[in-house]
Amino acid sequence: MSENKTPISEYGKYGLINHITKDFKAVNKSTISGIGDDAAIIDSGKNLTLLSTDLFLEGIHFNLIYTPMKHLGYKAVIRAISDIYAMNGTPAQVFISVGISSRFSVEQMEELYEGINMACKKYNVDLAGGDTTSSVTGLTISVAAAGYAEKGTIIKRNGAKPNELICVTGDFGAAFMGLQLLERERRLFEKEKGIQPDLSGYEYVIGRQLKPEFPSDVLNELKSEGIKPSSMIDVTEGLASDLLQLCKHSGTCCRIFYSKIPIDYETSKLAEEFNIDPMTPALNGGEDYELLFTLPLENLDKIENLKTIKVIGHMTSGGTGNYIVGDDGSEVEISAQGWKSGK
Amino acid sequence: MSENKTPISEYGKYGLINHITKDFKAVNKSTISGIGDDAAIIDSGKNLTLLSTDLFLEGIHFNLIYTPMKHLGYKAVIRAISDIYAMNGTPAQVFISVGISSRFSVEQMEELYEGINMACKKYNVDLAGGDTTSSVTGLTISVAAAGYAEKGTIIKRNGAKPNELICVTGDFGAAFMGLQLLERERRLFEKEKGIQPDLSGYEYVIGRQLKPEFPSDVLNELKSEGIKPSSMIDVTEGLASDLLQLCKHSGTCCRIFYSKIPIDYETSKLAEEFNIDPMTPALNGGEDYELLFTLPLENLDKIENLKTIKVIGHMTSGGTGNYIVGDDGSEVEISAQGWKSGK
Repeated sequence: MSENKTPISEYGKYGLINHITKDFKAVNKSTISGIGDDAAIIDSGKNLTLLSTDLFLEGIHFNLIYTPMKHLGYKAVIRAISDIYAMNGTPAQVFISVGISSRFSVEQMEELYEGINMACKKYNVDLAGGDTTSSVTGLTISVAAAGYAEKGTIIKRNGAKPNELICVTGDFGAAFMGLQLLERERRLFEKEKGIQPDLSGYEYVIGRQLKPEFPSDVLNELKSEGIKPSSMIDVTEGLASDLLQLCKHSGTCCRIFYSKIPIDYETSKLAEEFNIDPMTPALNGGEDYELLFTLPLENLDKIENLKTIKVIGHMTSGGTGNYIVGDDGSEVEISAQGWKSGK
Repeated sequence: MSENKTPISEYGKYGLINHITKDFKAVNKSTISGIGDDAAIIDSGKNLTLLSTDLFLEGIHFNLIYTPMKHLGYKAVIRAISDIYAMNGTPAQVFISVGISSRFSVEQMEELYEGINMACKKYNVDLAGGDTTSSVTGLTISVAAAGYAEKGTIIKRNGAKPNELICVTGDFGAAFMGLQLLERERRLFEKEKGIQPDLSGYEYVIGRQLKPEFPSDVLNELKSEGIKPSSMIDVTEGLASDLLQLCKHSGTCCRIFYSKIPIDYETSKLAEEFNIDPMTPALNGGEDYELLFTLPLENLDKIENLKTIKVIGHMTSGGTGNYIVGDDGSEVEISAQGWKSGK
């Protein structure tokens, strides 16, 4: 084993995967596009197959103290299929492998798979494979998703151009604030057993954390309006981090506007309670399961008909920096804060 | 969370996945075959796409004390592509997600991916995606593999018929005995630091444990002899467990012969040192990465030309029990012992 000990944190999430895979060369003709986008693109003759994988680890991605197994299964499916939607594909199959230690029961596994089944039914995907294995370290869930697209319809991360509109669905920071609330109530509960968690008035942010949905209808709405985004990504790491990915792949920079970032009332109210600027969870919270995409300017009128879509800024030329612009015209540089590492 | 606490061990590995997925119904036309075989079969228009996933957990599937990161990466790829080969497909892409805690360095990740790259090059597959995520609990590796097959060429687990020959490649139990040896030397090392592990004379079994290969050439050899197996599976759980899977899916039973099970000299010698019957690791050890398949009787002559293939028994009618037959004609029932669960 090597004696050198460069900490992983020096690279960050996206940096690490780029660094360690830089020597890999694709040899199969069917591998059209591999590492670097939401899903891999595989030429399967007539159509394109999209494939994506995700890993969920106890203690990092979920805490079983406040996450029901059913919701966990549901969310795992959402996370996997969101990568397929983000390339304008239609998810069709998911593959789920589960590592479980002996502290889990068959009934808990049934609940997990009940949630998986609910999400599969809602989004018309099939559970087509997977595995269970024993674990010494708690619950591990690995999800792969397969989806399909006709040739020519795929939207990648690298198609954005300067001056194009930056658009989003939904709102941001809610799942993160939901998590903060659940964490706070857990700490109170541990301090004083028997205390009832007080979550009333915050059903939306908790729902966003525990049982997210993906705005899959938006893709059909765009299609029926004759709009095709030039680049697209799903917001899972955080709006800032995922926006910077779009910029990096497209060779562009961006300006987004503070007052245009959609933030729900509950998110803002809770952020105030926690004494934090609501823009912090909105930009860096992650787990929003929304779409972020770019459109040529001429689509502005069409987009205004679609209530689920908001324009938050525009792309600029590469090298001009990535900024969020305040109401007073002040500019703050956008940085990605996606990586946190356990012990 | 449910109050009922049925231990996972009541179902076993294959039983659990069947139990918790019994209510799932496929809705997509492209899902030709899902859970239950080595890989899922997806209709991608002209050809078929095969997909398979595996999960590797520290402390269950590997121990980093004696597993170099490079070998671990290599083995993860072998495990994933073996499922594609086992359906007579050609693997083309792998997707690897890694969960790492902060005790791992960038250099260790580089070594892991060096091993992944070596296996990808040797077996002509592309690393086409994946993810890295932080972990609080050590190293987790999730591997998905995609492969391709022309329609009509896939070999499933359910095609065996009574009286057909049961064939295998390679030998069995070596990887398991290699692991026992590494474990013994680790315990000695922990008792008396500084002691050098004594592994000489056992290079084969250790190689089988740390850096397995898959007999992918056998599939081409069979093809060029005009032989198409009626059913096939890769031996990863253990010869007994995987053979019983073939029988279950095909609705057959089996007789295999004690003296016909290929066991390497090192495996036998080491089993003797450990005071165990070499047939125990051969039947239940697992991680052999060999092929197990069935052939109609008329192929017997052709098969004898292929030195890499051994006939170990034959299929019998369903309901007649699964037995291993000793030299004296005595019959012992075959049972699967695939599942072990951590704390």
